[in-house]
Amino acid sequence: GVHEVIVETPDHAATASTLTVEQFKNILLSYRLRMRELKQDKRLRYIAIFKNCGEVAGASLEHPHSQLIALPVVPKRPLEEMAGAQSYYTFKERCIYCDIIRQELLNKSRVVMENSDFVAIEPFAPRFPFETWILPLEHRCSFETTPLEKFSALAELFSTVLKKINSALSFPPYNYMLHTAPLDSSDSAYDHWHFEIIPRLTKVAGFEWGSGFYINPTPPEDAAMYLRE
Amino acid sequence: GVHEVIVETPDHAATASTLTVEQFKNILLSYRLRMRELKQDKRLRYIAIFKNCGEVAGASLEHPHSQLIALPVVPKRPLEEMAGAQSYYTFKERCIYCDIIRQELLNKSRVVMENSDFVAIEPFAPRFPFETWILPLEHRCSFETTPLEKFSALAELFSTVLKKINSALSFPPYNYMLHTAPLDSSDSAYDHWHFEIIPRLTKVAGFEWGSGFYINPTPPEDAAMYLRE
Repeated sequence: GVHEVIVETPDHAATASTLTVEQFKNILLSYRLRMRELKQDKRLRYIAIFKNCGEVAGASLEHPHSQLIALPVVPKRPLEEMAGAQSYYTFKERCIYCDIIRQELLNKSRVVMENSDFVAIEPFAPRFPFETWILPLEHRCSFETTPLEKFSALAELFSTVLKKINSALSFPPYNYMLHTAPLDSSDSAYDHWHFEIIPRLTKVAGFEWGSGFYINPTPPEDAAMYLRE
Repeated sequence: GVHEVIVETPDHAATASTLTVEQFKNILLSYRLRMRELKQDKRLRYIAIFKNCGEVAGASLEHPHSQLIALPVVPKRPLEEMAGAQSYYTFKERCIYCDIIRQELLNKSRVVMENSDFVAIEPFAPRFPFETWILPLEHRCSFETTPLEKFSALAELFSTVLKKINSALSFPPYNYMLHTAPLDSSDSAYDHWHFEIIPRLTKVAGFEWGSGFYINPTPPEDAAMYLRE
């Protein structure tokens, strides 16, 4: 496999709230660039992109950074997610994420913000308070095939959402993870890439480890309203 | 569902290292008693028993306690574990846990301790440093059907393991979870109840949340040797 650290800025004290949209766009473009490069290596099956911000969220370095780990296997979580999405597709012949987006935009109560190309929502059954997903409105399975001209809209929405989280929750520790299709699935009808942001406000304890279920005291509608305002 | 808190002792400052084996046995017997009682309610499908010790491990109360949550569904983690054990059984016609026990007792390198009826091992591919499993040597799918006369041996081994963890790792925060068969599986050939103890020494971060894979810097053989000595 491959492990890369993306140094996000020369400024040691920078946060998502101080980075400009242009700087944030460059971080996202560096993910895309490295994924396209590593994709050439046919031994690699999956690329995980993630950020750990704050000690509670597992950050071992203070300097703003995100990470890329390329694996020779498709890991457990993406496999599960794909199996769920594929089984929905088998019944409905529609992408479950496209259906979720359509329904959330009609209902509005869990939408944090949207722009021309992307939407940020609190998912219907979030594991964590203020868990937030960012999805492209247009169906696309792989992050790295997203056209360059979409990255201004993505950076603007993503950095605004992180700023809202920082200001609503006073700079909480958080993780975000890219969910994207395995490298060899060139054009999946049921995968739909997205980012999942999880502020680390609650502790994962014995019940969660034993059951795989999550106790979340904050309804997504409340969290969305709070982040919108 | 049902949520019960098991108050383990009147002594607010007690730890697994100060409780007597007899006291610990009574805690384990109270799990058994409550499970047998709640099993009468046919709406309940699964009982999760767990302990959160220390704030990092999600304990919201300081006083020594463990918890029981009875659910009207079988949760995700037990379902996954059963699916794996069942698929092994389909191939081999043997319980995977019985095979693991046989192999670990031959190999010895991952065995922490054993007695007449139980064994404590570091599993072959642990998610966490010093993750420790306690299993009955005799095949049995459900904790609550374990005969009363086995509980002295269980309490002796379980409390010694917790004391070893406390002394080797200076009273780390930890969780333990009972893994047991769903309430309606009276006599499964492939489930095999056990406790999983996870000291909370590493942080679960973006890679783990995104992939379902775990980065563990401590080989189980090293952890077992350390706990044995």
